[in-house]
Amino acid sequence: MQQRILILHGPNLNLLGSREPDHYGAATLDDITAELERIAAARSAMLEHFQSNHEGQLVDRIQEAASRCAGVLINPAAYTHTSIAIRDAFSATRLPFVEVHLSNVHAREPFRHHSKLADLAIGQVVGFGPASYYLGLQGLIRYLSS
Amino acid sequence: MQQRILILHGPNLNLLGSREPDHYGAATLDDITAELERIAAARSAMLEHFQSNHEGQLVDRIQEAASRCAGVLINPAAYTHTSIAIRDAFSATRLPFVEVHLSNVHAREPFRHHSKLADLAIGQVVGFGPASYYLGLQGLIRYLSS
Amino acid sequence: MQQRILILHGPNLNLLGSREPDHYGAATLDDITAELERIAAARSAMLEHFQSNHEGQLVDRIQEAASRCAGVLINPAAYTHTSIAIRDAFSATRLPFVEVHLSNVHAREPFRHHSKLADLAIGQVVGFGPASYYLGLQGLIRYLSS
Amino acid sequence: MQQRILILHGPNLNLLGSREPDHYGAATLDDITAELERIAAARSAMLEHFQSNHEGQLVDRIQEAASRCAGVLINPAAYTHTSIAIRDAFSATRLPFVEVHLSNVHAREPFRHHSKLADLAIGQVVGFGPASYYLGLQGLIRYLSS
Amino acid sequence: MQQRILILHGPNLNLLGSREPDHYGAATLDDITAELERIAAARSAMLEHFQSNHEGQLVDRIQEAASRCAGVLINPAAYTHTSIAIRDAFSATRLPFVEVHLSNVHAREPFRHHSKLADLAIGQVVGFGPASYYLGLQGLIRYLSS
Amino acid sequence: MQQRILILHGPNLNLLGSREPDHYGAATLDDITAELERIAAARSAMLEHFQSNHEGQLVDRIQEAASRCAGVLINPAAYTHTSIAIRDAFSATRLPFVEVHLSNVHAREPFRHHSKLADLAIGQVVGFGPASYYLGLQGLIRYLSS
Amino acid sequence: MQQRILILHGPNLNLLGSREPDHYGAATLDDITAELERIAAARSAMLEHFQSNHEGQLVDRIQEAASRCAGVLINPAAYTHTSIAIRDAFSATRLPFVEVHLSNVHAREPFRHHSKLADLAIGQVVGFGPASYYLGLQGLIRYLSS
Amino acid sequence: MQQRILILHGPNLNLLGSREPDHYGAATLDDITAELERIAAARSAMLEHFQSNHEGQLVDRIQEAASRCAGVLINPAAYTHTSIAIRDAFSATRLPFVEVHLSNVHAREPFRHHSKLADLAIGQVVGFGPASYYLGLQGLIRYLSS
Amino acid sequence: MQQRILILHGPNLNLLGSREPDHYGAATLDDITAELERIAAARSAMLEHFQSNHEGQLVDRIQEAASRCAGVLINPAAYTHTSIAIRDAFSATRLPFVEVHLSNVHAREPFRHHSKLADLAIGQVVGFGPASYYLGLQGLIRYLSS
Amino acid sequence: MQQRILILHGPNLNLLGSREPDHYGAATLDDITAELERIAAARSAMLEHFQSNHEGQLVDRIQEAASRCAGVLINPAAYTHTSIAIRDAFSATRLPFVEVHLSNVHAREPFRHHSKLADLAIGQVVGFGPASYYLGLQGLIRYLSS
Amino acid sequence: MQQRILILHGPNLNLLGSREPDHYGAATLDDITAELERIAAARSAMLEHFQSNHEGQLVDRIQEAASRCAGVLINPAAYTHTSIAIRDAFSATRLPFVEVHLSNVHAREPFRHHSKLADLAIGQVVGFGPASYYLGLQGLIRYLSS
Amino acid sequence: MQQRILILHGPNLNLLGSREPDHYGAATLDDITAELERIAAARSAMLEHFQSNHEGQLVDRIQEAASRCAGVLINPAAYTHTSIAIRDAFSATRLPFVEVHLSNVHAREPFRHHSKLADLAIGQVVGFGPASYYLGLQGLIRYLSS
Repeated sequence: MQQRILILHGPNLNLLGSREPDHYGAATLDDITAELERIAAARSAMLEHFQSNHEGQLVDRIQEAASRCAGVLINPAAYTHTSIAIRDAFSATRLPFVEVHLSNVHAREPFRHHSKLADLAIGQVVGFGPASYYLGLQGLIRYLSS
Repeated sequence: MQQRILILHGPNLNLLGSREPDHYGAATLDDITAELERIAAARSAMLEHFQSNHEGQLVDRIQEAASRCAGVLINPAAYTHTSIAIRDAFSATRLPFVEVHLSNVHAREPFRHHSKLADLAIGQVVGFGPASYYLGLQGLIRYLSS
Repeated sequence: MQQRILILHGPNLNLLGSREPDHYGAATLDDITAELERIAAARSAMLEHFQSNHEGQLVDRIQEAASRCAGVLINPAAYTHTSIAIRDAFSATRLPFVEVHLSNVHAREPFRHHSKLADLAIGQVVGFGPASYYLGLQGLIRYLSS
Repeated sequence: MQQRILILHGPNLNLLGSREPDHYGAATLDDITAELERIAAARSAMLEHFQSNHEGQLVDRIQEAASRCAGVLINPAAYTHTSIAIRDAFSATRLPFVEVHLSNVHAREPFRHHSKLADLAIGQVVGFGPASYYLGLQGLIRYLSS
Repeated sequence: MQQRILILHGPNLNLLGSREPDHYGAATLDDITAELERIAAARSAMLEHFQSNHEGQLVDRIQEAASRCAGVLINPAAYTHTSIAIRDAFSATRLPFVEVHLSNVHAREPFRHHSKLADLAIGQVVGFGPASYYLGLQGLIRYLSS
Repeated sequence: MQQRILILHGPNLNLLGSREPDHYGAATLDDITAELERIAAARSAMLEHFQSNHEGQLVDRIQEAASRCAGVLINPAAYTHTSIAIRDAFSATRLPFVEVHLSNVHAREPFRHHSKLADLAIGQVVGFGPASYYLGLQGLIRYLSS
Repeated sequence: MQQRILILHGPNLNLLGSREPDHYGAATLDDITAELERIAAARSAMLEHFQSNHEGQLVDRIQEAASRCAGVLINPAAYTHTSIAIRDAFSATRLPFVEVHLSNVHAREPFRHHSKLADLAIGQVVGFGPASYYLGLQGLIRYLSS
Repeated sequence: MQQRILILHGPNLNLLGSREPDHYGAATLDDITAELERIAAARSAMLEHFQSNHEGQLVDRIQEAASRCAGVLINPAAYTHTSIAIRDAFSATRLPFVEVHLSNVHAREPFRHHSKLADLAIGQVVGFGPASYYLGLQGLIRYLSS
Repeated sequence: MQQRILILHGPNLNLLGSREPDHYGAATLDDITAELERIAAARSAMLEHFQSNHEGQLVDRIQEAASRCAGVLINPAAYTHTSIAIRDAFSATRLPFVEVHLSNVHAREPFRHHSKLADLAIGQVVGFGPASYYLGLQGLIRYLSS
Repeated sequence: MQQRILILHGPNLNLLGSREPDHYGAATLDDITAELERIAAARSAMLEHFQSNHEGQLVDRIQEAASRCAGVLINPAAYTHTSIAIRDAFSATRLPFVEVHLSNVHAREPFRHHSKLADLAIGQVVGFGPASYYLGLQGLIRYLSS
Repeated sequence: MQQRILILHGPNLNLLGSREPDHYGAATLDDITAELERIAAARSAMLEHFQSNHEGQLVDRIQEAASRCAGVLINPAAYTHTSIAIRDAFSATRLPFVEVHLSNVHAREPFRHHSKLADLAIGQVVGFGPASYYLGLQGLIRYLSS
Repeated sequence: MQQRILILHGPNLNLLGSREPDHYGAATLDDITAELERIAAARSAMLEHFQSNHEGQLVDRIQEAASRCAGVLINPAAYTHTSIAIRDAFSATRLPFVEVHLSNVHAREPFRHHSKLADLAIGQVVGFGPASYYLGLQGLIRYLSS
């Protein structure tokens, strides 16, 4: 049976590709989604995709995913550094998740060096551009299969 | 005339009872609501109940309550530690409120030790599980009657 | 059989009622004791009462209570913020206890925001004036009965 | 051709005028809007107005503005001190903006002394009551014309 | 009757225009003075102007202004961050003042993020180049008229 | 009528004169008492004297003094830096007091630089050896007479 | 032509597999090497492998690699948190590198939360056990090919 | 032979008496000078008096005093908290000095709690209003005689 | 002639053996006393023993010991981390002392990592259970003999 | 059967005896070794000895010891405060160890107050000069026998 | 053509030679000036010399030097640690400068360890006594020639 | 007789000249060595040269130098900020040394602003490129001759 995985994108990631190419590259969210689907297909996994600028909607969606998904791949963007509510959603649902970042957060402003989620995650992939998602998905699927 | 009181539940409290029983116990939000209604009835108070994972909705609801409620009993959950917007809603409406927590926040992660609301509250009840709500409601009604 | 509970009052609480009514209200320690006895009687609990300005005497009394009391309700006052000895007395005797404060410590000087005991307590009731004791005793009895 | 400018108001500013006159003055949001329109009209600028208590809606609106507005005048209120998502929205859209505050934030609680947006802004106007908006709008229009 | 306002410029501002155009623009102190006079004239205010590299002379001048000026517009430059003596001069004379900065201090070195004066000021205008002075003067005159 | 003043000496001051002459000088507590009596006599004040190594006894004594003394001259010694209980005793009794130290605490270990009492005191005299007591008593009597 | 990549293992990683399976899993360094070789072979890359407990030897090896390798995959282990010398070796040779960690360093002791290398790296892969190496190598090869 | 003592007043103390009576009392600098002269005369000491708002002038005057004065009584006012130059002047001239403050600096803003001079002083007298000077002068003369 | 040594036990150590065996082992204070006597006898030393929960009594006893003991072996327990009064008693009496702890304080709560006494001690023995006392006594006797 | 124990000496301890006698005493490493052998012989233990200035060699040696030694007595010297690699070697090999210091590190520079190893050790002996080794070895052997 | 260099001495350096020989040596400012002139002459450079205790005068002089000097050799003394005004003077005039200190500031009080100028300087020479000036002048001339 | 001086180069300095010319210039270590030899020859000093990437080898070499060298000129590079072992080697051998840095460490990353060696050095020369070595050697020879 196919495993279902939720792909979550935090605030401002809907703008990907059109802006700030130095930090985030030229790929759009659709480009990333397409490649993630290819990776999932090759591994018999099914994906759901959701982007929101609202912390509450991300929490809602994680709660909903708990009943039908096996894990979450999340780029929490700005909420990485401020959201205990998202952290608590993962903690309350016990959904395994992988945290990814397009840019190398450690080379940016100090407030981006700390993640409020990372210690609860399976793992973190940081700095590879869109490939952070691809590597992160592979890592998540591998984890769920083990 | 009956006093009206708003019961506010912050993010992830809708999951209560089904998950993380070690921190939060087995009672559901409905169980807690039922017991709060009993306590209120015995003291001629009327309750409204609202839960949301959205900081903005909690702010909206506090603003609405200002015209018809005498006070608020709130478990702000994750927003306890991050929301100045909720703090400012209480400060702007001058609604008296009591802050409650199911678990003993002082025995958990350091970021849970500080509340951005507590200095504005009438008082705080922490660590008694669902009874934190019950004791907090009694304290609030007693305060509103004095 | 009746449960025995020790009520402990820290330094300067013997002055209650006669001074600083803005922070602590007009009730004296005797008023509080009388109300606590009423609450205990209604719940078949027996109380012992002790106030001291001496950290060592509070430690002695907690140790003595270990053999005959089921729990402690304590307002540690100034020692809340400085006494590891009282903390260790609770830790060594494993006596369950509830910590209460008359005033809202979070709205006062920064050094009153941290309690050296709170993470060991069952729970904390803060800011309701004398009612902090009453709510705290209810919470403690409920805990001991569960 | 007329320049279009978005006026953004953060959480609890919808209550302006009716509450906390000592911090925020007696002017309502409508009073401020009217005066801002007069200033804009005199300078051939067009304004859009938006208030929300939701961080996500403020992010959404900044993103929408990117395609039709030349700049933003924002009073981020509570989100000044907590929102990296709003910061990233400005950074991603590269919309020039001016940050204003009604009260003198430096004379209030320490957590209001730091802005998560200010270093990205053109400038900041703080402490003049409703006039902070008026001066800020002048500063923004002057900047956009240069 | 005309109101008298003192315009104070802190250390190194005499070099304005000739150097560091990236931070401070091409306008000289004389250009700024001319524009400030125009603004004052239109509002029936009279201005005095003083620049010094000496903390003590700035203190002396604030003291002198107390007997004949209604308010002060100050760009304290480097002394913003180090001078309690200037702060105390404002506090002792109770002269209302507005603090302005040419550059956006929040986008520069961390030691420029804190002002030792700002909490005593009516308000602050930051980052608009010479226009910080112009907006600040308007804000000050508006304040003195109210 | 004569004013009554309590002279309080904190822990280890009973050893004065016999030990550590480099920090505390050669005068004994009796020498200091004799000189304080001379100063009091010349100003029609009466003194009580008390030394203790026990924090609780110092608190007890301050409470007792409240009913018959007009003020307290205290050298809290080690408890200067650790006792909130003594602070609260002064705060609860509203007894005016002067804090003195024999040695210059600012030239010693960092933990001696902060006093938990000083902000509640009328004033502080530090570093003059036994003369700190004599100057402090003069200051206290002068204050009580004004 | 084949690209050459250096695989570097820091202190105590030679013990892998035999000890602390809860943090590091049961795979040995040889197991990891074998899998890395398979991944490299599939992508026409050649690998060199080196493990050392000596900070200086790791620096020496990075310097040597500069003339013949295109990039480095490093698990710096304990030196992650203490070695500026290794950081400077990467900085001086300008060798692109990926940093990997077997365990989730963010869920361990606080001193493991900061990496002295991460801001210079292309990216970081953390917490996937041996798969951190495999994902990291893919990320590095992808980066070198782009 | 008479001993010569320099009385130094830091910035804004020339305004004494006319302003901020709640912090500094109604006495003017002339009142204080007159009383200091009486105290000095009674003890065969001669005084010099100097007030300046300029840090450099205070340094100059301490240097000049070194050749003809036996000690200095200084109220460094704002420079207490910022001037290493004044500290170094005392250190370089080895002039014994006493530091006085009119108000209780420990009950004011946090930046007034630390003195950059105090550890070099003989002693400190704080909080007695003008009497801080009188007690401080007595303490200094007593010290110089011993 | 026999050397006399005081063995001091801080708060809650009277409970030893009966409680918290994981931190403190099963030995009672009497067991430890018996073994210490054997060690002392073998080295011609005489011991005195004292336990108290009162900081003041520990200070009193150190003062008394000064006239008849050559050194002190102390387990200050909770007062290790809070008592400057005990520190000052050692400093005032110049009694050489050794500090011991049963448990490894460095593996416990952060507030147990710092000792307010240790820098004045001859040495410290930490973590060996009752053997900390035995090793500490040997170290003290060896020191006193040298 | 005899137990084998490794005695490890960190950097610069080879110089012992010849230099800095005030901190480290006159005993050489050979003197210490001889006495340790006497203690071990009396307790049927066998010792290995190793000194190195190289962090990596100390790590190597701990790893080697894992297969044939029952425990380690280590004076990590400078590496106490900087080496996570040595910490991880103990953690990876699970070798029980005792940490000793000749001088009282708590009475020296602040950077010597924290040990990166101590929380993993059985215990610590500090400040007794060469006797720290002797007491530490006794403590280790006693621990290994229990 | 000869290069012109300004030699600037900060507060209290006029006292050099006569006082505090342990920190600053026996050489006077004239001795140092003579040697600097010899060094300059040998390298065809011309020197100007200026000492002041006034921060403002040092700022004035740096500004004046901008039009006729190629660089500055400065010992900012106490202002090293407190003056942003001097920093800004260098920054505004873009004059290259070398910072020197007679004593080793890193071996003195912590507040002397940080320089507010050093990151703008070409370089720093610290701790060689008067030779710090001589080496610093050579370094500056070498820099200006390159 | 000729004085012998050890020139020590820390990690990655062997790469000098070939890489990172913006921070370190184009000179190679050989260029620097040649110039240092010229300076030494002119002053009848003999030099030894040693570079290592290994902290332990630098410690070993300092120890060896103690018997035949009069002083050390060291550029500790990365170990400046992390090595207590090198500090202790200087402290144990009491070898006088001068610390030099090619780049201006105060203008680089914050972790480069603090040196673990500097307070033990004679002096420090920072920021002059290779000339830091030349000035440092002159300073050292001058010191050794005095």
